[in-house]
Amino acid sequence: MSKLNITDELRSNVSYHCWLQYRKIEEEAWIEQYQKYCHIIVVAEDSPIKTSALSELQKGLTSLLGHTPSVSTNPQQSSAIILATAEDAHLYEDVIHPVVFEQVNDDGYIIKAINDNSCNKLYLLGKQDKGVLYAAFHLLRKMAQQEELQSVDIIENPRNQFRMINQWDNMNGTIERGYSGNSIFYADNQFIGDWERIKDYARLLSSVGINAISINNVNVFKVETKLITEDFLPDVAKVADIFRAYGIKTFLSINYASPIELGDLDTADPLNPDVEAWWKEKAEEIYSYIPDFGGFVVKADSEHRPGPFSYNRDHAEGANVLAKALQPFGGVVIWRCFVYNCLQDWRDRSTDRAKAAYDHFKPLDGKFLENVILQVKNGPMDFQVREPVSPLFGAMSETNQIIEFQVAQEYTGQQIDLCYLVPQWKEVLDFDTFADGKNSEVKKIVDGSLFQFKYSGVAAVSNIGNDQNWTGNTLAQANLYGYGRLIWNPELTSEEIAEEWITATFGHKPNVKETILNMLMSSWPIYENYTAPLGVGWMINPGHHYGPNIDGYEYSVWGTYHYADRDGIGVDRTSATGTGYTNQYFPPNSAFYESLETCPDELLLFFHHVPYTHRLHSGKTVIQHIYDTHFAGVEQVEKLKAMFSELDGDIDQAIYHNVLERLERQLKNATEWRDKINTYFFRKSGIEDEKHRKIY
Amino acid sequence: MSKLNITDELRSNVSYHCWLQYRKIEEEAWIEQYQKYCHIIVVAEDSPIKTSALSELQKGLTSLLGHTPSVSTNPQQSSAIILATAEDAHLYEDVIHPVVFEQVNDDGYIIKAINDNSCNKLYLLGKQDKGVLYAAFHLLRKMAQQEELQSVDIIENPRNQFRMINQWDNMNGTIERGYSGNSIFYADNQFIGDWERIKDYARLLSSVGINAISINNVNVFKVETKLITEDFLPDVAKVADIFRAYGIKTFLSINYASPIELGDLDTADPLNPDVEAWWKEKAEEIYSYIPDFGGFVVKADSEHRPGPFSYNRDHAEGANVLAKALQPFGGVVIWRCFVYNCLQDWRDRSTDRAKAAYDHFKPLDGKFLENVILQVKNGPMDFQVREPVSPLFGAMSETNQIIEFQVAQEYTGQQIDLCYLVPQWKEVLDFDTFADGKNSEVKKIVDGSLFQFKYSGVAAVSNIGNDQNWTGNTLAQANLYGYGRLIWNPELTSEEIAEEWITATFGHKPNVKETILNMLMSSWPIYENYTAPLGVGWMINPGHHYGPNIDGYEYSVWGTYHYADRDGIGVDRTSATGTGYTNQYFPPNSAFYESLETCPDELLLFFHHVPYTHRLHSGKTVIQHIYDTHFAGVEQVEKLKAMFSELDGDIDQAIYHNVLERLERQLKNATEWRDKINTYFFRKSGIEDEKHRKIY
Repeated sequence: MSKLNITDELRSNVSYHCWLQYRKIEEEAWIEQYQKYCHIIVVAEDSPIKTSALSELQKGLTSLLGHTPSVSTNPQQSSAIILATAEDAHLYEDVIHPVVFEQVNDDGYIIKAINDNSCNKLYLLGKQDKGVLYAAFHLLRKMAQQEELQSVDIIENPRNQFRMINQWDNMNGTIERGYSGNSIFYADNQFIGDWERIKDYARLLSSVGINAISINNVNVFKVETKLITEDFLPDVAKVADIFRAYGIKTFLSINYASPIELGDLDTADPLNPDVEAWWKEKAEEIYSYIPDFGGFVVKADSEHRPGPFSYNRDHAEGANVLAKALQPFGGVVIWRCFVYNCLQDWRDRSTDRAKAAYDHFKPLDGKFLENVILQVKNGPMDFQVREPVSPLFGAMSETNQIIEFQVAQEYTGQQIDLCYLVPQWKEVLDFDTFADGKNSEVKKIVDGSLFQFKYSGVAAVSNIGNDQNWTGNTLAQANLYGYGRLIWNPELTSEEIAEEWITATFGHKPNVKETILNMLMSSWPIYENYTAPLGVGWMINPGHHYGPNIDGYEYSVWGTYHYADRDGIGVDRTSATGTGYTNQYFPPNSAFYESLETCPDELLLFFHHVPYTHRLHSGKTVIQHIYDTHFAGVEQVEKLKAMFSELDGDIDQAIYHNVLERLERQLKNATEWRDKINTYFFRKSGIEDEKHRKIY
Repeated sequence: MSKLNITDELRSNVSYHCWLQYRKIEEEAWIEQYQKYCHIIVVAEDSPIKTSALSELQKGLTSLLGHTPSVSTNPQQSSAIILATAEDAHLYEDVIHPVVFEQVNDDGYIIKAINDNSCNKLYLLGKQDKGVLYAAFHLLRKMAQQEELQSVDIIENPRNQFRMINQWDNMNGTIERGYSGNSIFYADNQFIGDWERIKDYARLLSSVGINAISINNVNVFKVETKLITEDFLPDVAKVADIFRAYGIKTFLSINYASPIELGDLDTADPLNPDVEAWWKEKAEEIYSYIPDFGGFVVKADSEHRPGPFSYNRDHAEGANVLAKALQPFGGVVIWRCFVYNCLQDWRDRSTDRAKAAYDHFKPLDGKFLENVILQVKNGPMDFQVREPVSPLFGAMSETNQIIEFQVAQEYTGQQIDLCYLVPQWKEVLDFDTFADGKNSEVKKIVDGSLFQFKYSGVAAVSNIGNDQNWTGNTLAQANLYGYGRLIWNPELTSEEIAEEWITATFGHKPNVKETILNMLMSSWPIYENYTAPLGVGWMINPGHHYGPNIDGYEYSVWGTYHYADRDGIGVDRTSATGTGYTNQYFPPNSAFYESLETCPDELLLFFHHVPYTHRLHSGKTVIQHIYDTHFAGVEQVEKLKAMFSELDGDIDQAIYHNVLERLERQLKNATEWRDKINTYFFRKSGIEDEKHRKIY
């Protein structure tokens, strides 16, 4: 409870406010245009979410326009912002026909300006309260972006139903794969109680449309197992109250062995009636504290976590017992598919970790209850800088699915190195699985449209901690922002999202916008250049996963190998001569990856073992590609740093120094990668760099 | 203080008593021969050390013979064991002429039997008390070994002056590189206070002639820095009392920055008069608690520990300020030469860690005060399974030197894998440095004879902890025993020492003796077989140093590289084309190592970078040697295990299971080594095993 006053201190820093800075608009013309709507805000029926919308508008408009709007419950205003839901028809029926709401989904909204003589009204209308809140954030974003409002007439629906964030926070205060300090939720095995900071996090999430959060690590250890008990449920309920007011449902990660660990039973067998009864009772208890509790996130039988395998039950049996317990209350089970043999013998070449999720889950299609959702990582391995899309997408037409991304940059620079991940996620969402013929993109699977899933959507591991700027590297805020924006509307381009974020964060200076946009958009390719080449992945230091260690996982139990020898490198996952992983894809993808002729360069070593002299579609040999990209990567980081240095004085000084310090560390890291990779492969291949650059 | 009663419990286990079990003699003939001397023990003047001797004799004789001797101060006995020092001439002058004592050195002793009709006397005579104690242990050893006593007439002198053990114990209870539990001295940042266990350790050490101990880790952290303050000196004095009664002097490792860390000064510059005065005062304080305090062990300017380099002073200046403070009290400074750049850039091929100690210290020869002793590790690197002898031995004829071994098996199996190290140490001691022409063996340098050092000897890192059997693997007790015995008399063979230890530990069963001797004597070559080949060293997991990781230190800051590429492996340390390390040896050793013709196979890769196809003196190529030794190593461990299994029922069951469990782990470890090494080098070299065995 010692950190109660921290938030106020933090709030004095620009970077704390991320994209909700609501920077004062300088141009009088814009102020004039906006101000005419903004003297009064009309809210009819009150609700916690509408209160949040109202409070955000007051805060935002005051800051943007320098004038605080008044609030009224009386709709008879000549000019006003009007907040209403579909049920408040009397507030808008003269200008918007109720039938228009048929185009609006549960989380969707309408923003419409009516300019009639001296009467200027802006309607922020949601099908439900949440829509009103999203509309309010949208309006504020438009103002911060300095977009015109006079003819605004928007109907906006999020494409994905679940838009979720997973906190990997432990109750001792650490965050698994956290790169921005400790947890904002926990310290010393209890809730910190800094509810203001959690509220600010809720604002950030809600502003980009997030509607679900799991508040503890998927690896649920001893203390965290008790989150579903009276010890902690009162505090969980407080957190849920905060998130609820921002349209966000609260979930908990649970320990599958809870019935045992909490001392009640000596089994957690899902088919045991006592276990079923235990979970039903547990659900009742949880919902007595949190009536709209979202449900459970479950990592079971994965990386030494307990699960149904202990009782010779499959994952469907394992998940369904939880689903039955939650079903009466409308809760769901989010069951992670990150299941593989993490005690693989490196000598065993027949086992392929990439195949594991498909092999485990595909046979269970249709066997899960309706309120179970499978959460599938974007790739078959683990959030590498480059991997193919998981073949499980589209392969289970009878089972609700959520895709899992990682906003936390575990394998992509750890918020030291710059890596704007929206382009990567977009590539995944745009990937055509051919599950139901052409145009069966991943985004259509996870938005539920292709197979008419009852539940679906997107989840991601959060990248925030209690650092002043939330994300360690201030530029990593763009990933959290971008994640929310992209999954709200996967048709947005990465550039559009980046531009929005830059303007909200740094304002409108053209040089700042251009430089930061350039930095963000080039960052993923740069990171890929100086790290593991051509889709092979890993080559990082075991354990903490930062920095190069080419053989770090090569002789390990983790199933993550590159098989480099003196002649070549890569994992043969073809059906013809390899592990047969390519077969898990629908045609024509299977053949596309199977063939050296068509397999894309950037995934070559994921699918094929080739000689160093193999010529890429780019025309380069593999070895020369390795040398060239690694020399280029370091040069590009040097350029990033040089470009960014020119912004000194043009952006907030604290942010400037924060980012510059990170770029310096990135340069060091990139140099290590370059030299270790190049030396390693030169020593192995014996092939000289064509350009005779320095290889140690 | 919670562990006060642990020792009694532990004492109920055979393995706790190590080689001081004093197993009951079964054969009546031996009992009869021994018993006739053993009815009475005569001690004239009492002293703590003589009390220890007496107590050990009573304990030992009772146990060996089943009869407790009585004690008398009256020398007029017809039969007796007589304990006396040179000063008690009246006790022995009728049978031993005082001039005989001229052959006995300070720690030496005489054992002489006089059999005259019904009068049977055994004289245990020391130049000083210590000699009496050593004679008592010697007598008990002879009985345990069942050697005849009737004609015994021994004059025995230890060859080395300092026979020291270094504890690397931290006050939080951990032991740096400890493989047998936690510290017997400390827990929770204080002394445990189990003085009985420390006394038992003193007995073990004294029984093999150890006469000095440093009781804390050479890396002196925050709490340990205070060992030289009133906070802890009363407890240090208690420990010193215990060791003193066993002829062992107590030393402390100190923090070079103590004057700063203890809050008194803002500098530790050795040339600063305040610093000099501070250490003088500190010495006075320490000696007020411990009048015979041994002195300081110092790791300075090494692996991030503070030292004189911070003030642009050299090691001589650094050591001398301490020496001046200790000199009035007869204390010494033991200054470690383990100094090298531990932040080396792996890209820097010109810096050679092997050269560091010589380069740092050789120029300072003659500049150290008389009560400074340099402690030099046996090899130039760090206790590898195989390295050449440090070229510093013999290179500093004007500077007292101690050699440092490591009984703890940091790089030699960590007391999981069996590795009897006496043969390795013996090889080092027998190494001819040619420092003063032929026959300038290391043993003659460290025993002080070659250069007439005032102080010299041997030190070693202890391998004990609070495990029931002290050393984790019970067979690792042989290393502690062997260390003491070898440095007492370097002319003993490894086999002799092993046989003594086996008999004392397991008794006289021929199959047990043969098997264990065989196991011990083959263990070092076996360990070498399956680990880093041909003297190149390392290839272990960073940090904890157990198990294979071929590139684990290859791209690191530690200066420990193998430089394996697709064509060859090894470090070129020649003068002709390499780092010039060979030049640090006296001729003809320098030329011997310089030339591929003469460089011994087992050190080839330490001195030379050669192709995998290079043919060894053995006739094999390097690559085939690697394959053969690694396949052989695993087979040999399997044989060790099979041999040992046959002893089931013939030795103590607890010891049997302890060792068997270790052998099983060793087999697993050896298999990992074999497969990782073989795969690594097959991938790199592309050369098939001639015998077509399985390489993954």
